[in-house]
Amino acid sequence: MNIIFTFKPPIEMQKELQQSFPDIRFHYFNQIEEGQSIWGEAEVIVTFGEDLTPQHINNAHHLKWIMVVSAGLEKMPLDSIQEQQIMVTNARGIHKKPMAEFTFAYILHHAKGIHNLSLLQNQRVWNHTLKTQEINEQCIMIVGTGAIGQEIARISQAFGMKVIGVNRSGKMVDHVDEVIQLDSLKEALPEADYIVSILPSTKETVHIYQYEHFQKMKESAVFINIGRGDVVEESVLIDALLNQEIAHAYLDVFKKEPLPADHPFWNMKNLTITPHLSSHSEHYLPRAMAIFKENLSSYLQKEEKQQYINVVDIEKGY
Amino acid sequence: MNIIFTFKPPIEMQKELQQSFPDIRFHYFNQIEEGQSIWGEAEVIVTFGEDLTPQHINNAHHLKWIMVVSAGLEKMPLDSIQEQQIMVTNARGIHKKPMAEFTFAYILHHAKGIHNLSLLQNQRVWNHTLKTQEINEQCIMIVGTGAIGQEIARISQAFGMKVIGVNRSGKMVDHVDEVIQLDSLKEALPEADYIVSILPSTKETVHIYQYEHFQKMKESAVFINIGRGDVVEESVLIDALLNQEIAHAYLDVFKKEPLPADHPFWNMKNLTITPHLSSHSEHYLPRAMAIFKENLSSYLQKEEKQQYINVVDIEKGY
Repeated sequence: MNIIFTFKPPIEMQKELQQSFPDIRFHYFNQIEEGQSIWGEAEVIVTFGEDLTPQHINNAHHLKWIMVVSAGLEKMPLDSIQEQQIMVTNARGIHKKPMAEFTFAYILHHAKGIHNLSLLQNQRVWNHTLKTQEINEQCIMIVGTGAIGQEIARISQAFGMKVIGVNRSGKMVDHVDEVIQLDSLKEALPEADYIVSILPSTKETVHIYQYEHFQKMKESAVFINIGRGDVVEESVLIDALLNQEIAHAYLDVFKKEPLPADHPFWNMKNLTITPHLSSHSEHYLPRAMAIFKENLSSYLQKEEKQQYINVVDIEKGY
Repeated sequence: MNIIFTFKPPIEMQKELQQSFPDIRFHYFNQIEEGQSIWGEAEVIVTFGEDLTPQHINNAHHLKWIMVVSAGLEKMPLDSIQEQQIMVTNARGIHKKPMAEFTFAYILHHAKGIHNLSLLQNQRVWNHTLKTQEINEQCIMIVGTGAIGQEIARISQAFGMKVIGVNRSGKMVDHVDEVIQLDSLKEALPEADYIVSILPSTKETVHIYQYEHFQKMKESAVFINIGRGDVVEESVLIDALLNQEIAHAYLDVFKKEPLPADHPFWNMKNLTITPHLSSHSEHYLPRAMAIFKENLSSYLQKEEKQQYINVVDIEKGY
């Protein structure tokens, strides 16, 4: 049985996989095109999810399962995959700790005015009267209440924040004070001090935040997007920030990544840009491989689909 | 009965105090010297704790109680106060939330490399490969396990960190995984990723961190001081940072404040300076006044000393 990786994990990880599964032939490539000669023989493909085309799916005559070492699936050829009835699993869940930490790094950065404190140090200026805010008793709205959203909610409550979760169904989840339906998002926005968007990119979420949404937010509100960049049209966000509808936006995701060097986002005063790394961590690949190995054991034992970790619902796109 | 404030709270706060205690004469001054004419008649003095001299105490013939709207008492004339058997209460406890938030602002700032991310934005550079760390599963050592230390410990555990508390007695406290005695500090340092010092300034704590302590710490360790500046000699810390015994120090407190503009600390690369504001918050004075009012009620009802909130043990100095 052949398994193709369209990236090269560290050599120790390769060795360890081989030891755990001695009968499997693992093939590691720096990029997908290098694997063409044995592509037709692969039963399993392990990928970061940004390199597969419908052509790849159609040429993979023995393909049964794709393991995506990521959470977002918007670059996957889902129609072809569904047509061929290929199972997809992903690495959702392993992002939650680094992403919650990242979110609070910037929430606290904002509340404590660290940007200004840093400028003052450069100028050798001691300003004891600088205003800082507390986040406890402030309200955080978490749009998208999956594993990542719930982890952010858990930490929010530890800090004594009021937590409003937003999801499609309005179904209650752990660690939030209340849940509202995505349909009612706009009405609830005036209450939030921090709005954290962790929405995936789907037909329903594209451009979901309109200009009027930013108008509904407090002038002191902070918008943090660690989900996908296309939930808000860039021109809309630029207008909202220029008109100071909100205090600041922290964006880790963009419509086009890398963000082009001439993009107007770069030098906006009330916008902070990070290069899509909220989920980064030295623990990332080991955790993803742990999921893969569990699922590979299930695969070898020919278990039912529901026995696998993180099977993706291709219809929903997550 | 006369009560002197050696600072002026907002006018609303003054009104509210008068309404709550209509029979008391409150006197508010911008600074202590302005109150000399009625100094001898004051039974209670409310101060930030940095303006009283032994002379003030000796001249205050009716003084029974000093409310310090702060936590540190190292600038108070404690010998004179003890001699005259004046009760001192302070505002400890109200600092814990802003200080824990401040501590995590800088812990996460460090772990997520926000300083570098900020420089990259200035240069319009997208660097997706920047290394970031997770704090979960890292070890935090909290030196000083009072109200502030325990609040930091609580948040640390919410983030999944291992928490070592350090105090004089070695007595267990809430939210820590283990407690060690201050005497054994040095031996435990090699385990810590973050060392947070919240020690007050007392005879026992002056220069408690020696060069050998920094040698014992990991090279990747981060030292955060939000207690008092004199726990480490500045030359010792400068040497430790220049020799990269640790990765970074975040200092909110200094031997001499404001830190002089020509101080070598200002432009050290692995040292971050903040102007003693970790406890700052718009909620600070309201919370301190809530304690004062509670205690004032006890005072008027002539209650026992143990009924008061935050009575200071003058011997111990906290």
